Amino acid sequence: MATPTKSILITGAGLVGSLLSIYLRRRGYEVSIYERRGDMRKETVEAGRSINLALSDRGIKALQGVGIAEEVLQIAIPMHGRHLHQPDGSHAFQPYGKEGQYINSVSRHELNCKLLDLAEREGVHLHFHQRCDHVNWKKKEVHFAGPNETSTVPFDLLFGADGAYSATRLSHMLQHQKFDYQQYYIDCGYKELSIPAGAAGAFQLEKNALHIWPRGNYMLIALPNLDGSFTGTLFFPFEGETSFERLKTEADVEAFFRQTFPDLVPLVPDLARQFFHNPTSSLVTVKCFPWVRGDHFALIGDAAHAIVPFFGQGMNAGFEDCTVLAELMEQWGDDWEPILAEYQALRKPDGDAIADLAINNFTEMRARTADPKFLLQKKIEAWVHESHPDQWIPAYSQVTFSPHIRYSEALRNSQRQEAIMQEVMKDPDIAENWKREDVKERILAALRG
Amino acid sequence: MATPTKSILITGAGLVGSLLSIYLRRRGYEVSIYERRGDMRKETVEAGRSINLALSDRGIKALQGVGIAEEVLQIAIPMHGRHLHQPDGSHAFQPYGKEGQYINSVSRHELNCKLLDLAEREGVHLHFHQRCDHVNWKKKEVHFAGPNETSTVPFDLLFGADGAYSATRLSHMLQHQKFDYQQYYIDCGYKELSIPAGAAGAFQLEKNALHIWPRGNYMLIALPNLDGSFTGTLFFPFEGETSFERLKTEADVEAFFRQTFPDLVPLVPDLARQFFHNPTSSLVTVKCFPWVRGDHFALIGDAAHAIVPFFGQGMNAGFEDCTVLAELMEQWGDDWEPILAEYQALRKPDGDAIADLAINNFTEMRARTADPKFLLQKKIEAWVHESHPDQWIPAYSQVTFSPHIRYSEALRNSQRQEAIMQEVMKDPDIAENWKREDVKERILAALRG
Repeated sequence: MATPTKSILITGAGLVGSLLSIYLRRRGYEVSIYERRGDMRKETVEAGRSINLALSDRGIKALQGVGIAEEVLQIAIPMHGRHLHQPDGSHAFQPYGKEGQYINSVSRHELNCKLLDLAEREGVHLHFHQRCDHVNWKKKEVHFAGPNETSTVPFDLLFGADGAYSATRLSHMLQHQKFDYQQYYIDCGYKELSIPAGAAGAFQLEKNALHIWPRGNYMLIALPNLDGSFTGTLFFPFEGETSFERLKTEADVEAFFRQTFPDLVPLVPDLARQFFHNPTSSLVTVKCFPWVRGDHFALIGDAAHAIVPFFGQGMNAGFEDCTVLAELMEQWGDDWEPILAEYQALRKPDGDAIADLAINNFTEMRARTADPKFLLQKKIEAWVHESHPDQWIPAYSQVTFSPHIRYSEALRNSQRQEAIMQEVMKDPDIAENWKREDVKERILAALRG
Repeated sequence: MATPTKSILITGAGLVGSLLSIYLRRRGYEVSIYERRGDMRKETVEAGRSINLALSDRGIKALQGVGIAEEVLQIAIPMHGRHLHQPDGSHAFQPYGKEGQYINSVSRHELNCKLLDLAEREGVHLHFHQRCDHVNWKKKEVHFAGPNETSTVPFDLLFGADGAYSATRLSHMLQHQKFDYQQYYIDCGYKELSIPAGAAGAFQLEKNALHIWPRGNYMLIALPNLDGSFTGTLFFPFEGETSFERLKTEADVEAFFRQTFPDLVPLVPDLARQFFHNPTSSLVTVKCFPWVRGDHFALIGDAAHAIVPFFGQGMNAGFEDCTVLAELMEQWGDDWEPILAEYQALRKPDGDAIADLAINNFTEMRARTADPKFLLQKKIEAWVHESHPDQWIPAYSQVTFSPHIRYSEALRNSQRQEAIMQEVMKDPDIAENWKREDVKERILAALRG
């Protein structure tokens, strides 16, 4: 293959921008990344607002595509299931899937630094402290504001990988005749609360699990870090009876945590300090269309499809965008118009689907602890899956461990399964009768029908 | 009442901004309007992209609130119903409501000029060629770019009345922590086609009607003007078998119109010229939240709730915003925090509702000519309404002639009526059996139940 001459500009040196740049370098393109913030490998970055990441099969597949999965997994910790912390102090463990299926806790910061190192090693040009001011679509150049001066950077092809609040997307939106756009917030925010390592770097909670304290309409989760600490995240309503606005003093916070998360309190000595020091962040979903312009622009990752974190798929979805682009580059070579058109046609429905799946999971999680009928339904589903693992695959497994199933298929399948289960649950005696072969047969027949 | 000291700034000298300014002057405020375009009373404005307006009861009520309804209605033409032009050349007339119920055709340009005159007469300060660049929310000032210089204008209270593509809304959106926003386009665009007056200013079509040429997934409408002309608007798909993209030459256009709108062709000698000269515009729906900030900012009209024109309610909804604000000013005096909070609480659900009603009407209109079952359903509804006009009010009448019914109620009522009719239409013999007392009783009982 002759070296292509296109110069490619990426806005955003986050996870997806960095990985994308490696993919593009491998095909011989000149690639520059312009990032609004500083170089996180050298400068301290804004702390206290990273949700830890759960790297799963779609993300790993994308890393394998450029041969860096093993290197990345060295900084990850396998989590084999959910470790539930109940209000009464009892515990329960729910495996995520079958034996050998797990997701991987990884620090956003460490992963991003690793990807930037790898990108630099591949010859990607990195520029920091460059805020995208606007894009001149006619001249194909981006205007950046630096710390002291502005600059104008021409491009043949521009990728907007600059996240949920993408500045390139805004420029695209404001200068596009018919741009469909939607951003909406859930009524919960989140706050990071760090659980330090114990003596000599000991893990204070079970290491290989994702810890959840489900509490109806809010919850706390914690993911392990390599140094023995856990990154905790409280998902909590902004307003209402139990909410951020009601916890006003350190005494409020301490009383609330002692009552609600009693087993957590001894592990976090500076809980109240952290609570008021760390910012409260909001959770947005973004859907938009179109994602591309001709042969010279595409949105990717959160800039195209920001989602809430309740399915653990934000990064994985963005990485999968790279996998799909790579397959299309393989097919179309240097012909970017069909590459971008097919990328959009394939990924737009999948981006919408994972956004909906993530919102559904948020809604479901709220109901989960309150509704015994829902718990029974999940028990029946698990039982059917166990005996017929290829016919009845739980939505979680389809999304997390089945990268050959598209998100849009997984959504359709899960809706179909839900409809079937709704019928089954109508039986007034289901609580007594469920573990019978005829119930299972009825479910499987409905699935086949 | 002591003269309040607040200075109020309105962006946008369109229909809603002008009417709002009159309401505010009546309460003694200092009011300035800043408008991006020139003064349409003195300068020629961009032609060929105005849908004519149908002023109906909600709009008239708002004009009555400041005593200018009669003056405005002098430049309007009553339309008592739809005059349908069928493909086979036949005609039909459908009254809009009961005897004496009608809507009013009015030219956007003439109405806007009239409102600007009235605003100026009230002492509103008008500033033209002032583009809102951004709002500084902390300092409460708007930065405008004029033809030669920029200016900074302080405000106590700012109203964004600058339309579907509101610049104040964008400033609000970009600097608000949790702003829900949605804009979406339908797959049809529109193009104005003017039908000139006949000899000596004669109307070439029935004067007191809204003319419709329904053609399945597209249509043409025409509204009368005082000078004997009609403003026609073609609503037409952007792409596909029959669409703007397929009509490439003057010959294409002429052949298409001769075949599809045969009775229109002789009335518009320069049809093909107009078709290529007049722009094709898109149709957007905008929903957002919040509309207000504390006591110092509110969106109003299209800036808060842009809708598609298929219910003839865009302007009427914006004018009704003024009515509601006036009632709240009456209640709360000069205390703008509760005024704006209640304005938003009341109008947001109504703005969403009329947006959905307008989109539903668009979808319904496409199906209307194709589906005999739908026509039968409408016939049954009309028959029930005729004998029980207070119990069964068609959605169109609720929205158009019943300003005491909120849009959100009208939407709920229409959904309920639709559900009842869906049940009735399940009867396989309904086409033969419908005009029976027991059918009517069943419908009314369901409505009461």
